Amino acid sequence: MKEFSIIERFFTAQSQPRQDVIIGVGDDCAITTVPTNQALATTTDTLVAGTHFLPDTRASDVAHKALAVNLSDLAAVGAVPAWISLALSLQEIDEDWLDEFSDTLARLCEYYGINLIGGDTTKGPLSITITAQGFVPPESVATRSGANRGDLIYVTGTLGDAGAGLDILLGKLDCYAVEGLSHQAQASAEAFLQARHHRPTPRLLAGTALRRTISSCIDISDGLLGDIRHIMKASQCGALINVDALPISTHLANVVSAKQAIDYALASGDDYELCFTLPEENVSELETLLNSSGVNFTCVGQMVGGAELTLMYQDSPYKTDSEAYEHQFMVPPIPKI
Amino acid sequence: MKEFSIIERFFTAQSQPRQDVIIGVGDDCAITTVPTNQALATTTDTLVAGTHFLPDTRASDVAHKALAVNLSDLAAVGAVPAWISLALSLQEIDEDWLDEFSDTLARLCEYYGINLIGGDTTKGPLSITITAQGFVPPESVATRSGANRGDLIYVTGTLGDAGAGLDILLGKLDCYAVEGLSHQAQASAEAFLQARHHRPTPRLLAGTALRRTISSCIDISDGLLGDIRHIMKASQCGALINVDALPISTHLANVVSAKQAIDYALASGDDYELCFTLPEENVSELETLLNSSGVNFTCVGQMVGGAELTLMYQDSPYKTDSEAYEHQFMVPPIPKI
Repeated sequence: MKEFSIIERFFTAQSQPRQDVIIGVGDDCAITTVPTNQALATTTDTLVAGTHFLPDTRASDVAHKALAVNLSDLAAVGAVPAWISLALSLQEIDEDWLDEFSDTLARLCEYYGINLIGGDTTKGPLSITITAQGFVPPESVATRSGANRGDLIYVTGTLGDAGAGLDILLGKLDCYAVEGLSHQAQASAEAFLQARHHRPTPRLLAGTALRRTISSCIDISDGLLGDIRHIMKASQCGALINVDALPISTHLANVVSAKQAIDYALASGDDYELCFTLPEENVSELETLLNSSGVNFTCVGQMVGGAELTLMYQDSPYKTDSEAYEHQFMVPPIPKI
Repeated sequence: MKEFSIIERFFTAQSQPRQDVIIGVGDDCAITTVPTNQALATTTDTLVAGTHFLPDTRASDVAHKALAVNLSDLAAVGAVPAWISLALSLQEIDEDWLDEFSDTLARLCEYYGINLIGGDTTKGPLSITITAQGFVPPESVATRSGANRGDLIYVTGTLGDAGAGLDILLGKLDCYAVEGLSHQAQASAEAFLQARHHRPTPRLLAGTALRRTISSCIDISDGLLGDIRHIMKASQCGALINVDALPISTHLANVVSAKQAIDYALASGDDYELCFTLPEENVSELETLLNSSGVNFTCVGQMVGGAELTLMYQDSPYKTDSEAYEHQFMVPPIPKI
């Protein structure tokens, strides 16, 4: 099967064609239209087998994550997703894998109301690059640079689950070895944490709901420690994080110590929750907006003067050796030739 | 050096920031604006080391080609390029390589008046995915599907050079072994053909000049045989190609037989010339437009009824075993770990 046949067979069907797509998959370019008074938000993220996911990860999970990490970037600026382009490098043509990958991608595109508008399939080590495009009113873009001293720091959801999920997959964490926990609770924790690694939830509704209320935003892909530093640098502020306030899921708390949970939350990758800041006077508006969107959110600290990041635990300085997570080779990528 | 530092050090500077880029490299998304009455053209193409370029190819040539193949897709629909996003997978951080790659990319962006607006650097086998975006009036988009029976088929430039250039690099073609050719002519041919492989010229001016005059267009990335079939299929026509009319460069003609030159022109990859069709009554307009843009163009055939592709040589059927070029592994990709 050749490149053209792959695109035609697996990636041409659109269950819900969007009106703003004049030409979609199958020509030299996609041609689309952007609504008047909306800016275009564009982001590109790559997942490489062996670096971002284990080579034996199910195709449906790879598709889910490849899309979610890109939609998460759109969420962080408050954009509504519209279209994606897919660049897929495949070591070999595995039709079962392509069936599962393309089915999941199509199902998620339908769920999010977006269209796949183009792409490229190439022969090479397995990697997936998605470029996602969306719309945001230019006056409401949430950036990393708008935080001010005194602004409160919030995060959505819970942190550290995805990192623990990866450690389970790598054999570094064994939920079934946790004492004093029922077998069912052990199994639930393992399933939950692995799912958080494989299938992150882009916080699109929160992103668009919040964009006029917050002062800065970023999605947490490399751990809070790393990503809050991007806001600090762009906004020229310091930050104080109360690590005992970090939102930890019951499942994570069930299988690791409180200290380990904090370290996962601070420095493991792939949570894809939002971290955002806002002035204190906007808190009641925030509560109204997020309560109605069904997304949990937690105040974890405050922007301060200077340029330092200070971690506190019950009013005492908290020491950690953790740093921002960096995606490294999980296993040596061995090409099948 | 980490991902953030790579982006900051090598890919943040823009010598000529565009007014339509509200937020460029360095936030979760780029935020840009599309002019009213213009549609957005988007294309994504990946180059994989070992498949699309030899692993020892200079970083500047890799940058040139990665950009050119994407701009060529914009040219094919008649779009004016505006922005690119870069997804770069690197086996290791080679600062010299990154310096050369990013310098070339920046220089070419300046030349074409475009901005790099975002990207992702990941650890993985060397590959480069660029997503290019541009503008085209929606009523003037050149597609693959507009050709009609009787339309003349044209190509820009010369065909087959890039394929011969690749064969030189692979040791399959030796310009210096050609008899009856001066050493200087041998050297010129080698340099020219290799340059055509490494540094294709996207036909942007031709694409925008022609978009209201032609009936269909495609860029030739996989040989004329393969790409004319895309126009035939999308336009539901047959085609007749006069292979003796195919434009062959003097350098290619100097180093291979006439039959070999035709086969290169029909079925080798990476020419990135445009193939387009137009009704006969538009020919004088075409000549005016292209003569003033300085691009050579040649009539190579005609769209016909049916669904067959017929090749003719001096009024007799021409037989070839060639098929559309498909980018395969040139060499086994061996990851350096």
